[in-house]
Amino acid sequence: MDKLLYGTAYYDEYMPYERLDKDIEMLKEANFNVVRIAESTWGTFEPQNGEFNFTHIDKVMDAMHKAGIYVIIGTPTYAVPTWLVKEHPNVLAYTKNGQNKYGPRQNMDITNPVYLYYAERAIRKLMEHVKDHPSVIGYQADNETKHYDTRGENVQIAFQKYMKAKYKTVENLNRSFGLNYWSNAINSWEDFPNVDATINASLSCEFSKFQRKLVTDFLAWQVSIINEYKRNDQFVTQNFDFEWRGYSYGMQPDVNHFDAAKVFDFAGVDIYHPSQSELTGCEISFCGDIARSMKNNNYLVIETEAQGMAEWVPYPGQLRLQAFSHLASGANMVSYWHWHSIHNAVETYWKGVLSHDFESNPVYEEAKTIGNDFNKLSTKLINLKKENKVAVLFSNEALSALNSFKYNAKGLDYNDVLRLMYDALYKMNVDCDFIDPSSENIEKYSLIVVPPLYAASDELLLRLNKFVENGGHIVYGFRSGFSDENVKVRTTPQPGVIETACGVYYNQFVVSNNIGLKDNPFNVSEEKNHLSSWMELLIPKASAEVLAYYDHPYWGKYAAVVQNHYGKGMTTYIGCLPSDEIIEKIFENALKKCELWGIEQQFHFPIISKSGTNEAGNTIRYYFNYSNDSATINYPYNNGKELLSEKTISHNETITLKPWGFVIIVN
Amino acid sequence: MDKLLYGTAYYDEYMPYERLDKDIEMLKEANFNVVRIAESTWGTFEPQNGEFNFTHIDKVMDAMHKAGIYVIIGTPTYAVPTWLVKEHPNVLAYTKNGQNKYGPRQNMDITNPVYLYYAERAIRKLMEHVKDHPSVIGYQADNETKHYDTRGENVQIAFQKYMKAKYKTVENLNRSFGLNYWSNAINSWEDFPNVDATINASLSCEFSKFQRKLVTDFLAWQVSIINEYKRNDQFVTQNFDFEWRGYSYGMQPDVNHFDAAKVFDFAGVDIYHPSQSELTGCEISFCGDIARSMKNNNYLVIETEAQGMAEWVPYPGQLRLQAFSHLASGANMVSYWHWHSIHNAVETYWKGVLSHDFESNPVYEEAKTIGNDFNKLSTKLINLKKENKVAVLFSNEALSALNSFKYNAKGLDYNDVLRLMYDALYKMNVDCDFIDPSSENIEKYSLIVVPPLYAASDELLLRLNKFVENGGHIVYGFRSGFSDENVKVRTTPQPGVIETACGVYYNQFVVSNNIGLKDNPFNVSEEKNHLSSWMELLIPKASAEVLAYYDHPYWGKYAAVVQNHYGKGMTTYIGCLPSDEIIEKIFENALKKCELWGIEQQFHFPIISKSGTNEAGNTIRYYFNYSNDSATINYPYNNGKELLSEKTISHNETITLKPWGFVIIVN
Amino acid sequence: MDKLLYGTAYYDEYMPYERLDKDIEMLKEANFNVVRIAESTWGTFEPQNGEFNFTHIDKVMDAMHKAGIYVIIGTPTYAVPTWLVKEHPNVLAYTKNGQNKYGPRQNMDITNPVYLYYAERAIRKLMEHVKDHPSVIGYQADNETKHYDTRGENVQIAFQKYMKAKYKTVENLNRSFGLNYWSNAINSWEDFPNVDATINASLSCEFSKFQRKLVTDFLAWQVSIINEYKRNDQFVTQNFDFEWRGYSYGMQPDVNHFDAAKVFDFAGVDIYHPSQSELTGCEISFCGDIARSMKNNNYLVIETEAQGMAEWVPYPGQLRLQAFSHLASGANMVSYWHWHSIHNAVETYWKGVLSHDFESNPVYEEAKTIGNDFNKLSTKLINLKKENKVAVLFSNEALSALNSFKYNAKGLDYNDVLRLMYDALYKMNVDCDFIDPSSENIEKYSLIVVPPLYAASDELLLRLNKFVENGGHIVYGFRSGFSDENVKVRTTPQPGVIETACGVYYNQFVVSNNIGLKDNPFNVSEEKNHLSSWMELLIPKASAEVLAYYDHPYWGKYAAVVQNHYGKGMTTYIGCLPSDEIIEKIFENALKKCELWGIEQQFHFPIISKSGTNEAGNTIRYYFNYSNDSATINYPYNNGKELLSEKTISHNETITLKPWGFVIIVN
Repeated sequence: MDKLLYGTAYYDEYMPYERLDKDIEMLKEANFNVVRIAESTWGTFEPQNGEFNFTHIDKVMDAMHKAGIYVIIGTPTYAVPTWLVKEHPNVLAYTKNGQNKYGPRQNMDITNPVYLYYAERAIRKLMEHVKDHPSVIGYQADNETKHYDTRGENVQIAFQKYMKAKYKTVENLNRSFGLNYWSNAINSWEDFPNVDATINASLSCEFSKFQRKLVTDFLAWQVSIINEYKRNDQFVTQNFDFEWRGYSYGMQPDVNHFDAAKVFDFAGVDIYHPSQSELTGCEISFCGDIARSMKNNNYLVIETEAQGMAEWVPYPGQLRLQAFSHLASGANMVSYWHWHSIHNAVETYWKGVLSHDFESNPVYEEAKTIGNDFNKLSTKLINLKKENKVAVLFSNEALSALNSFKYNAKGLDYNDVLRLMYDALYKMNVDCDFIDPSSENIEKYSLIVVPPLYAASDELLLRLNKFVENGGHIVYGFRSGFSDENVKVRTTPQPGVIETACGVYYNQFVVSNNIGLKDNPFNVSEEKNHLSSWMELLIPKASAEVLAYYDHPYWGKYAAVVQNHYGKGMTTYIGCLPSDEIIEKIFENALKKCELWGIEQQFHFPIISKSGTNEAGNTIRYYFNYSNDSATINYPYNNGKELLSEKTISHNETITLKPWGFVIIVN
Repeated sequence: MDKLLYGTAYYDEYMPYERLDKDIEMLKEANFNVVRIAESTWGTFEPQNGEFNFTHIDKVMDAMHKAGIYVIIGTPTYAVPTWLVKEHPNVLAYTKNGQNKYGPRQNMDITNPVYLYYAERAIRKLMEHVKDHPSVIGYQADNETKHYDTRGENVQIAFQKYMKAKYKTVENLNRSFGLNYWSNAINSWEDFPNVDATINASLSCEFSKFQRKLVTDFLAWQVSIINEYKRNDQFVTQNFDFEWRGYSYGMQPDVNHFDAAKVFDFAGVDIYHPSQSELTGCEISFCGDIARSMKNNNYLVIETEAQGMAEWVPYPGQLRLQAFSHLASGANMVSYWHWHSIHNAVETYWKGVLSHDFESNPVYEEAKTIGNDFNKLSTKLINLKKENKVAVLFSNEALSALNSFKYNAKGLDYNDVLRLMYDALYKMNVDCDFIDPSSENIEKYSLIVVPPLYAASDELLLRLNKFVENGGHIVYGFRSGFSDENVKVRTTPQPGVIETACGVYYNQFVVSNNIGLKDNPFNVSEEKNHLSSWMELLIPKASAEVLAYYDHPYWGKYAAVVQNHYGKGMTTYIGCLPSDEIIEKIFENALKKCELWGIEQQFHFPIISKSGTNEAGNTIRYYFNYSNDSATINYPYNNGKELLSEKTISHNETITLKPWGFVIIVN
Repeated sequence: MDKLLYGTAYYDEYMPYERLDKDIEMLKEANFNVVRIAESTWGTFEPQNGEFNFTHIDKVMDAMHKAGIYVIIGTPTYAVPTWLVKEHPNVLAYTKNGQNKYGPRQNMDITNPVYLYYAERAIRKLMEHVKDHPSVIGYQADNETKHYDTRGENVQIAFQKYMKAKYKTVENLNRSFGLNYWSNAINSWEDFPNVDATINASLSCEFSKFQRKLVTDFLAWQVSIINEYKRNDQFVTQNFDFEWRGYSYGMQPDVNHFDAAKVFDFAGVDIYHPSQSELTGCEISFCGDIARSMKNNNYLVIETEAQGMAEWVPYPGQLRLQAFSHLASGANMVSYWHWHSIHNAVETYWKGVLSHDFESNPVYEEAKTIGNDFNKLSTKLINLKKENKVAVLFSNEALSALNSFKYNAKGLDYNDVLRLMYDALYKMNVDCDFIDPSSENIEKYSLIVVPPLYAASDELLLRLNKFVENGGHIVYGFRSGFSDENVKVRTTPQPGVIETACGVYYNQFVVSNNIGLKDNPFNVSEEKNHLSSWMELLIPKASAEVLAYYDHPYWGKYAAVVQNHYGKGMTTYIGCLPSDEIIEKIFENALKKCELWGIEQQFHFPIISKSGTNEAGNTIRYYFNYSNDSATINYPYNNGKELLSEKTISHNETITLKPWGFVIIVN
């Protein structure tokens, strides 16, 4: 990537009247330099079976090229055309709710050969048509790809074959999965059942894993086709998304991001987040850190909100704050969904840069300033590199397994705890990467934060023990190590394999009914000294130091949080689900003990600092004010230059940050 | 209609033992003069396919005739007999939830030809049998007819043909409905999909409109059969109902009332409402105003509650208050559902005038006084005429469309806003009519209140602009004019076509998080100075006067309510969803400006005044006290006579209204 | 039964590694003397169609025998093997939600002949194999058997035949069920419809009754097979369960317990209940009283919780308190589900005596003390007999019918009111039995408490009138007597047949909107002087005494609670749903009037007393402290001996009960 990309999705196909020249004029005025087109428009460029018509695409590519705006071509495969469903209704996937119906996108079975046949033909026709166009800098293979819970008979048979190949004998399978329970034993492969209603989480979690593999395979298949055509100067990316709770909330349960990302040149993601007084920057950082970790490289924000939904229309300054926050996490592209607001159908109220009237508006006006600044500062801000000492270890397998046994009063799941832990790091300005059980670079970190690693192989846990033995620090969330990779609960005292490193064991657990920690050991506010949900009745070993006990007449003799030296390293084991304030205090303790408590920790949310090294080898530091009130900071480094104002900033100088304002200092 | 009708539904078929003579004695004692029979009793008069047995009907007609009680015959078609479903299971409709099951009423497909064949035969047999009976004054065709969401394959095909006839080419359809989005384009009529799961509201709203047309067609078909038989002195009516939320709440989404009412001689409706301390009279007035507007004529209350459900059992006085409230809105008939409480099945707890024991009870005793007063005052109170200056413009199309994009935190829908606006008028004693986009008499009003007219043709909006230009006043609710008749959002700044008359435009909108109006411009109580849900960021034009701004650090520069002179008239545009108190204040402002603030506005709910002109040309004025406390009013007109007490009331005389009491004054 | 049984369910089949010797050592150490095995393990002992393998069962029987531990064999029929569903998918039942899926237990149709064929073969093979083993003391036929809402076509046809046999003619059926309503009349048996969606509660309740009969028939069939094999010294039992609301809450709607229990030698039940600070002992008493009443004999607690779910892990002392509470209600066996915690599948977090690590833990340690005390006190505590003067009359028919017309704001149903009434008796230490309409011993009681007996035959009600006439006392809940055995509402004033004995009638009813009783007649705390839901507007007859009027401006003239002398006896009729405190006061009044207010009523929850006569004819009195605080009682009887401490207790001696502690005194 040689310059920062600032872009939007652009759909000539959806225009209510001819707009292209006027739109390009407005795009240029705002210094947008890239558009993404074509994804989801299969029905337009193949209006009937085998009839191709690339008028819209040609027209946009030509016009953009003339205007000096790059084009990214999305393959259209996530929204099947009307004729395809009419001719072959069985391309619609069977899910837990029965067969999908015509209408929505992402309703097809990504393993259906009829779908794959037509999808391949459409991709090849598209690639042949666009590959040589000078405007095209890259491709997006499909969009927000997931398995959409496809689980029809064909998928069940494929799963059966996968299981036979993996477990070899039914005896091995029955033993590994505990299938004897409730007569669920499978005593010949011919008896292999449809798993839709299984009560065995070992089986359902393995099926989820298999479904995630379908996504990896599907994307690899698409990319292999695209690669047959694409020029060497063109990239292929995906638009990965995250667990959706009205916005990008947590790790994506339906895709193994690290696995699926392997075939792509760049990681691309969409990031949507609350705004207005709810804007914290946390999702920008969380999703950005995952995206950057996918390929240990800079990434593309393929989609993020401009106006978005009515509750997201940004306050003045917020669009700028967001754009530069993406860069500060390592993005090389910020692209809006979408240019113009759509006049019909389900996303009518998901507004673009422009409203339905295509006129200028406050958001477009603010976008102009971003385009100009991106353009001006591109060489300084592009390809920001980070060398983080802290990593968060997340796991699709642990998520599936823990969510199968969401044992708590509030229904909290894996992503809730992941976000509780991540958000604490974010608010303390501890920059971090993400790793997963497949990561080869685990050992390079000083501190690993482990949300409930409910399902994990002995191998992984022993590797983590070794990491500690060699001097690393791990903060473990409750229920870590509880079951093996087959979601079979370990038959040893808990936390099983990691007991060695954690210096603690238990075989009883209860739930908290508003229980606190004894004597408020972390000195948090009274209303924050409470635990929700899960409580392990921890028994520390002699080597261990108890950081907190439960405040309870009967459970008070058990430990809640325990720290233990092991080899050259140390662990902190949290046997419960504390408040956000307590989590921060536990992290503060751990960071200080492994000497990671640094200069940036003097700042705290709503002041957010992010930094990295640019191509020239200079340190770029961003200070963001995620607040409605202005704030001041004392600049703690040697003299530097603020890039937007081009003013010099001296050591200890007081900098005022406007509401939703920020500075970028190089030194 | 030559006398006020006071009646009940009567089911000899449901009697646990022979009751007719005793019931007629009790009916007579209470001066009931009409019963509705036969609707829903198909299974009784055609117990087996082709075997007809009219014993119950004959017996009741003869006995009623002898007693001087009129009979209205209901066709039985809304409850299909057991044998029909057994012989032809496919008469059961397919809906969004799959095929209906045997048991409930209204479970059939009103377009199914097997159903229509047997229904027609049953209607003809019934009509032949009853038409000459001297007791029969009229007919009710079917009951509470709706389309019951029928959407099986036959309905889908019929819809496809309707669409082809309407839109002619797929290109026209794709463009009008924006179907290119997400590959939903239909590029040959053969591809026309099942629309059950469409994500395109243009399509789903058109389908809803088509479904409403099925109701109109079905009723017209039934009436045409009845008309072949009925005598000239007999009328045909329907029992239209309203959106149901445990009681009659809003306009009926599934029927186009004005369209469907055309074939009937009289509009008939059922009106159910909360009671006891929740009794406000509002639903009586709301439903009555719609019913009266259906044919611009007096109407029949075919069903209303006697005891009804346990939470509806009226306090002493309420049954009287309700009955005369119906008359005050223009009803010529008040009829209870139903005479006796039913001893089995789902409506066991929907009690009639009598309880299950058939004995007298307080409700029956109160009914006696009503029957006597109806009888005594019939000539004075019948055929009350109103000449209202205010109308509410409602629209089935706007309802379907707005509810497809129910964009707000509280999930409020069209009827919620309609009721918010209507109820304010009601409480201020502003008598009004209803009009819809098909109404030819729009121009006769001085003030039109327009709940969110989300979908509307240019033609309608231009007509409204013209109305203002010519001196009319309109109060528009937010989101009016937003999309065209195809639910395509307009490509101009909003509110589109009506911007001219409203003197305001916007292209941004947000949602209120408990935001108020700046400086409480309407001087309401503190807790009522708030907005919920939708907020348009209005920019007034020079000609306009801003009545209210938002109280918000960033949105505070935008207007919330704007008034504008246009031609000889004026508009008030409300860009948000204010509290009931604010709505009243906005209406007060508008009413005063168009000189409609009159004598009756000195009274306010719980004092409700209603008036009209009787056949003798006298003004009849009702004053109701919807309250547990007695109240006084000063009679503001020239001397008149109170009809119940037969006392003279002089100008300015203080009248005491008992709890749930009322007076009727003629002058 | 010659000694108290202390046991657990034991599953060698589910063990992750060979454990038997170690487990037996631990079982012995805790004085466990019985294990239940084999239920639900069909898939293990018949791994393929017709291949039987009893290795696990043999091994466990042999080892237990050697250790002197008894074995109860459960037939495995409630969890069908994988191969059976694969070969014959139609063994899966059709319910209201469609056909069941593979995976869960209890998913089959208990009337399906393929299922019955294979089940019978498996039972016979099992019985042949185990019957002569010296360890085996008894059998459990199936487990927690219910009808699982089976309602496929075969069940519908069987129901049709049952109906024809019962009602003979369609005319009789139509009349009895009021089927004319909404054209539901069945005018030939050929038309008999599928009743899944019927709107006629007479029909749906009769179908529920028919479904309960399926359970009775299925169990009788199983027991008849077992009886062909079992030795005379072996018993057959069932593990009946209760309405489940996360724990054993109310009477089982899907089984007629008294009917189904007839074929068994002993009643067996599972009882699960809240624990920790929510432990009240109420479910132990409630379920125990039902179990004891099933056969008017001592019963077996086949399953209860050890650690159970995380919110159930007992506080120290609670496991002991629970075990002896079971004995105090008449149990001869207390058995845990289950020995070891399961490492896979849906009940992983339903923990046994041991955790997943098989190590000792506080619960196991406490179980040891129970085993030792059971062993020591067996001859004194076994076969405790009670002669209660109070009975609660419950009714499956009333439950089905009332729940079809759950008329109230809070959605309370039959079991809610049953528990409200039962719990009041429990807290007042009034020991009671359960009776149902089939009971022959109704007349032996002095006071019968009748929760809403909504559906009942004239015969039953006349018998209750006779009971009063002869000197009995009845406390009736509201809506009693309302409908006949066909759920047809009576055509007389309410409460119909029992009006004679109750001295009260009504034909109007309303609902309470936080209404209280006038002048707080029962002198309860202000916040407890309220009624929820249903209110009958009672009119007392001259003979009756009004205990309470409603506190309401209009309904205040009606009575809420009425007492009436009739013959030699008395009734108390409660026409509303009062708070728990008011219910206690009404019972106190009634108990005093029939001279049942005794010594034990000086104690009140959390002090719970239970007593009975042991085999030696001595009185055994238990005093339990269901509280976190210690408490004292004065022992009100002649000198006795406390059995655990072996100390003498003298009259009026003050006894201290520890938190969750208890004493057992014999005299």
